[in-house]
Amino acid sequence: MNIVDNLFLAETIASISTLDPGHYALARTRLDSLTKPIGSLGRLESIAAQVVAIRSGCIDLPLKKAIYIFAADHGIVREGVSAYPKEVTSQMVMNFLGGGAAINVLARLHHAELTVIDVGVDADFGGMAGLMDRKVCRGSKNMLHEKAMTDPQLRLALDAGLELAGCAHQKQQTLIAVGEMGIGNTTAASAITTLLTNQPVAAVTGNGAGLDDALMQRKIEVIEAVLLKHFGELRGKPNPLEILQCVGGLEIAAMTGMFLGAAKYRIPVIADGFISTAAAAVAYAMQPEVKEYILAGHCSQEPGHRFLLRYLGIHPTLDLEMRLGEGTGAVLAMPIVESALHLYAEMATFESAGVSEANA
Amino acid sequence: MNIVDNLFLAETIASISTLDPGHYALARTRLDSLTKPIGSLGRLESIAAQVVAIRSGCIDLPLKKAIYIFAADHGIVREGVSAYPKEVTSQMVMNFLGGGAAINVLARLHHAELTVIDVGVDADFGGMAGLMDRKVCRGSKNMLHEKAMTDPQLRLALDAGLELAGCAHQKQQTLIAVGEMGIGNTTAASAITTLLTNQPVAAVTGNGAGLDDALMQRKIEVIEAVLLKHFGELRGKPNPLEILQCVGGLEIAAMTGMFLGAAKYRIPVIADGFISTAAAAVAYAMQPEVKEYILAGHCSQEPGHRFLLRYLGIHPTLDLEMRLGEGTGAVLAMPIVESALHLYAEMATFESAGVSEANA
Repeated sequence: MNIVDNLFLAETIASISTLDPGHYALARTRLDSLTKPIGSLGRLESIAAQVVAIRSGCIDLPLKKAIYIFAADHGIVREGVSAYPKEVTSQMVMNFLGGGAAINVLARLHHAELTVIDVGVDADFGGMAGLMDRKVCRGSKNMLHEKAMTDPQLRLALDAGLELAGCAHQKQQTLIAVGEMGIGNTTAASAITTLLTNQPVAAVTGNGAGLDDALMQRKIEVIEAVLLKHFGELRGKPNPLEILQCVGGLEIAAMTGMFLGAAKYRIPVIADGFISTAAAAVAYAMQPEVKEYILAGHCSQEPGHRFLLRYLGIHPTLDLEMRLGEGTGAVLAMPIVESALHLYAEMATFESAGVSEANA
Repeated sequence: MNIVDNLFLAETIASISTLDPGHYALARTRLDSLTKPIGSLGRLESIAAQVVAIRSGCIDLPLKKAIYIFAADHGIVREGVSAYPKEVTSQMVMNFLGGGAAINVLARLHHAELTVIDVGVDADFGGMAGLMDRKVCRGSKNMLHEKAMTDPQLRLALDAGLELAGCAHQKQQTLIAVGEMGIGNTTAASAITTLLTNQPVAAVTGNGAGLDDALMQRKIEVIEAVLLKHFGELRGKPNPLEILQCVGGLEIAAMTGMFLGAAKYRIPVIADGFISTAAAAVAYAMQPEVKEYILAGHCSQEPGHRFLLRYLGIHPTLDLEMRLGEGTGAVLAMPIVESALHLYAEMATFESAGVSEANA
């Protein structure tokens, strides 16, 4: 598939533009007028400037926050690459709907609207309330033997993410996060990371939800075999859609669409952990300017995540040794982003507060 | 002054006990039953376990949060060690009362009750509403020529912090943060850090609110001269009260009292940046068990802060390159601590949610 084969995707990519340096400069001037030593709010200042520039100079507070979780199953789990049985994907979707998962707790506490989207779980949820049904098929294929998805499947998965970004725009959401659930998806994310960053598989592969050493070795060998099958010895620079189609997951493709759509609608979007960031990295490979709209929620314990953050050139907001997914690290970063914006908007200036500035 | 000369302090120190390993073990069992891979919430799990143990196994949610800012002036500013004029201390106190400082914005956003305590500002606030008057004197003395405070001044400053911990207990606050305002107080904090950690002055001295290189050099020389005057060439291990009296500040002594008092009343207390953590470190030097009650809000850009965190053996929650003080880094960590506790209390277990556990 080529990008031009998908009009929705092609239009989205064409609509993404670089941020206006003028908005950055205005944000900088405002930040330097506030009652604090210049630069003393550290990374909160760069976060504020980035979001102000994304929103074209105008930030509406309070923020309207939302988290989108895309769920899908992975055929590759048949190769024994995960510590948990495949059923956990659908069980966790039920847990999300029941309100008992980590992301539910964080979304409630930090007032982020939660949307769960089934893009490919191998279970029949029977139109269950609270679950958005965008099921492309019941899981990706076993990529050790064939491409993870067909052309139409890839298109539907990408479109689901693009559509959801449109929903976020219609709901006037001003800060969104992108998370996932899918047993086996660190395997897909490691394959993507190797293809995009040229790091060896062993360097970008972690123990996922808790593999022992022998299974870790097995996981690495499976990923190497998968890459060899689809991309051969000399991989060159595969095109991002080919990467998604051969070694991606349905939820990863959907998240890629969501990152691109968020940039189109100028909504700051927080990437979560390794898998969410893999989707962001594929979006970046399609359209480098998308990264100006992305914030990194945290740095996870999965070793590949750091390579992806470096590839994207973005700095994680938090580093709490987490490795859960679901969007948890992204939602946890929301109060930090929110703090940066409230400081930007509400602090007194040296002039208004009658505070002396630094000696020249 | 010896600790036994201050009955309030001596009683507080005697009342602090180590946390019960049984509470830690119970917290660990609960954490491992929740619907997530074992350990996947990373440092959130250790934060939750610590707070649960501090509260003797029982956490009341939502948390009742508060931030205490102690303000004082420093005689040492006459030696030209600060980028800002001394008047900024009182001007910033007025800014706190007016609601325009960074800490006001963060306290409002994160629902932390803010108390500002004057323990030694060189200004007459005339009983201004919203300011707690515990003024010991109008600033510490110039420690290049004499001890920063007298015996009675030190006692009054410590007692102010001990008293405020009692207030927090009476108000049933369950998470408190300790911050400060005092032009010149990074100089005092660097002197304290050298005495406690044996690091060279140059390694623990930063540019404060924004000194240039020449003034930085001047600051280092002043601190070295101060240490030589009070502790001589061979410093040994000076006693913590002597450190506070000779090179401390009134707000630093008060914060030391507050950390000790928080431990007495089993209230988890978040240290902020370099100066707040210097006070925590002095408290630790008096009573090592106090550190079990302390959380590190963040790691600031002041180079001495990392040495103090290492000395205390505590890990910063955030690392956002901040260097503002006022308690900002501590209050910014509150939503993270809060998240840890809500996850602990509200997540479903594998059993309750019907989710399969990892393969054995």
